[in-house]
Amino acid sequence: MRFDIPEPDEPARLAARERLAGLVKPLGALGTLEELAEWLSAAHGSVPPRPLDDVRVVVFAGDHGVSACAGVSAYPREITAAMVRVFLSGASGVNVLAEQVGAQVRVLDIAVDADLSDVPARVRAYKVRRGSGSIDVTDALAPGQAEQAFRAGMAVADEEVDAGADLLIPGDMGIGNTTVAAALVAATLGLPATDVVGGGTGVDEEGRARKVAVVEAALTRAADRTNDPFELLTALGSACAAATAGFLVGGAARGVPVLLDGVFSGAAALVARDIAPGAQRWWLAGHRSTEPSQHYALKALGLHPILDLGLRLGEGSGAVQAVPVLRSARAVLADMGLLADLA
Amino acid sequence: MRFDIPEPDEPARLAARERLAGLVKPLGALGTLEELAEWLSAAHGSVPPRPLDDVRVVVFAGDHGVSACAGVSAYPREITAAMVRVFLSGASGVNVLAEQVGAQVRVLDIAVDADLSDVPARVRAYKVRRGSGSIDVTDALAPGQAEQAFRAGMAVADEEVDAGADLLIPGDMGIGNTTVAAALVAATLGLPATDVVGGGTGVDEEGRARKVAVVEAALTRAADRTNDPFELLTALGSACAAATAGFLVGGAARGVPVLLDGVFSGAAALVARDIAPGAQRWWLAGHRSTEPSQHYALKALGLHPILDLGLRLGEGSGAVQAVPVLRSARAVLADMGLLADLA
Repeated sequence: MRFDIPEPDEPARLAARERLAGLVKPLGALGTLEELAEWLSAAHGSVPPRPLDDVRVVVFAGDHGVSACAGVSAYPREITAAMVRVFLSGASGVNVLAEQVGAQVRVLDIAVDADLSDVPARVRAYKVRRGSGSIDVTDALAPGQAEQAFRAGMAVADEEVDAGADLLIPGDMGIGNTTVAAALVAATLGLPATDVVGGGTGVDEEGRARKVAVVEAALTRAADRTNDPFELLTALGSACAAATAGFLVGGAARGVPVLLDGVFSGAAALVARDIAPGAQRWWLAGHRSTEPSQHYALKALGLHPILDLGLRLGEGSGAVQAVPVLRSARAVLADMGLLADLA
Repeated sequence: MRFDIPEPDEPARLAARERLAGLVKPLGALGTLEELAEWLSAAHGSVPPRPLDDVRVVVFAGDHGVSACAGVSAYPREITAAMVRVFLSGASGVNVLAEQVGAQVRVLDIAVDADLSDVPARVRAYKVRRGSGSIDVTDALAPGQAEQAFRAGMAVADEEVDAGADLLIPGDMGIGNTTVAAALVAATLGLPATDVVGGGTGVDEEGRARKVAVVEAALTRAADRTNDPFELLTALGSACAAATAGFLVGGAARGVPVLLDGVFSGAAALVARDIAPGAQRWWLAGHRSTEPSQHYALKALGLHPILDLGLRLGEGSGAVQAVPVLRSARAVLADMGLLADLA
């Protein structure tokens, strides 16, 4: 696949920097807001940037085969299907947090290991499979499914942009997904499993040791297939990882900013950048994950999380809370007075 | 002075903790939001806490005598008076950032070293004096003025609470105020000047060295008067520091949460706690300052900043951006579903 990723507008970035220097404040005194204001100006090609009124979260739900391994997750995978119903009822964490910032939430069953025929058909429209292979012993996906899921994610990004999205946020729901994220980051960056594996949603030290063993086995099994990103997603990823990567590239291809959430979208972003070089210029990192693999992924992408509120929920819940900061970054460019006007 | 500071409601705190444990999420997965949700429940004595609809920033503006010392600030003190007019025009940083979260901003001339007879009388209603003494060579305030300014701050808190405030935010505007903040923190905690002095709004290493020398001289001059908080404010503080301390105690006395901003309100809080022990239970820290003295002040108060966006503007600009996080913390308690309801 080849992608036409637009370039951010460098003259607009410089014009924003110049305006920021002239606002009624000491030079650089707005810290991160100034960096974000420049970034948004470059993305929108205007100073001030356009308002970020229409914010859309898409939660990619699916199960990961590794969750069948004894003890890599604190929760059984039946939770994933149950959580899809919670998202639809509006009672999940990200539903509540998104409502606070006026963002919409859409959930998609990409690979939930359950029969969800009772939920609306549009939720299942992009379903790739039920669950995925346990990456320590077998490929996560059958040949062609990584590409299928990636295209699904791109199509979803297109739908949301066509419907008016000013900002896209990828969410994830899937028991076992921090293990898959760790494997993708370790394979992409050549890091040992023990560096990238964290405690996930709440496993103890023994659980972490089991996750390390799973990731080590997976890295050994797929050692010769990590250079091609779709092979990597097939061997060590999941349908959700591939769909999220497609969503990120889809946003970039349309020139719409994407706000990454935690470790899962960070890992997907790392792979997505290898699929569509330059796409990372359209991405921001919303929230620091407690998982170490996010740190390595963001560092490789040159991204710094806006918030660090200690969340480890996934779902897009960290990123939605950074939306007010982005809006504030735009507002200072739009509404603050100028030093030159001081009497 | 003696104060009757209400106790937060510990049973409500425990009830919030219990409800958080039962929400549709892994235990503790909402991080800081869970701590804030418990805190707000204790403050309001209810689960969920009440909405934080009415948020009010009060900016205490005044000059500090140290700014006359060559090079302790990157800006001349004429800026303070000019900024009062910017606040009134709605074009300051905190005006713009407050509007993003629906908060009101009120500015008060407490000790601006200028004739502001052209601004509305209510802005000058609590004026204590013009400027303050340069603390390296003389007292900041005349006898009785610290108490006068403190009572003014308390009265302002009362006015805002009577008008409906659910949350109070102290803002500061005054060239030279990071030097005063450093002196107050160093004197209260027995720290050397070199540990607490930072770069302020933008001085270089030489400027920082001059600030250290000013604070050292001030600490030596007032060494035997640091045990009494009003003596301390008289010798090393300013009318704004005393007014801010009164504002913080006033909020606590009314049982209304106060969100501290940067280094100036952090230093005022440290002194205010010595004036009204227990008041700190009604305070949260909104934003990490780049000034080292805030770190020491908050540590002594047992507070952790919610955000770290690298701002060094003052005005309450960091704290207002933490308001959405507080509202989100309340919302998860009010609106998220329960694990027990999962099918």
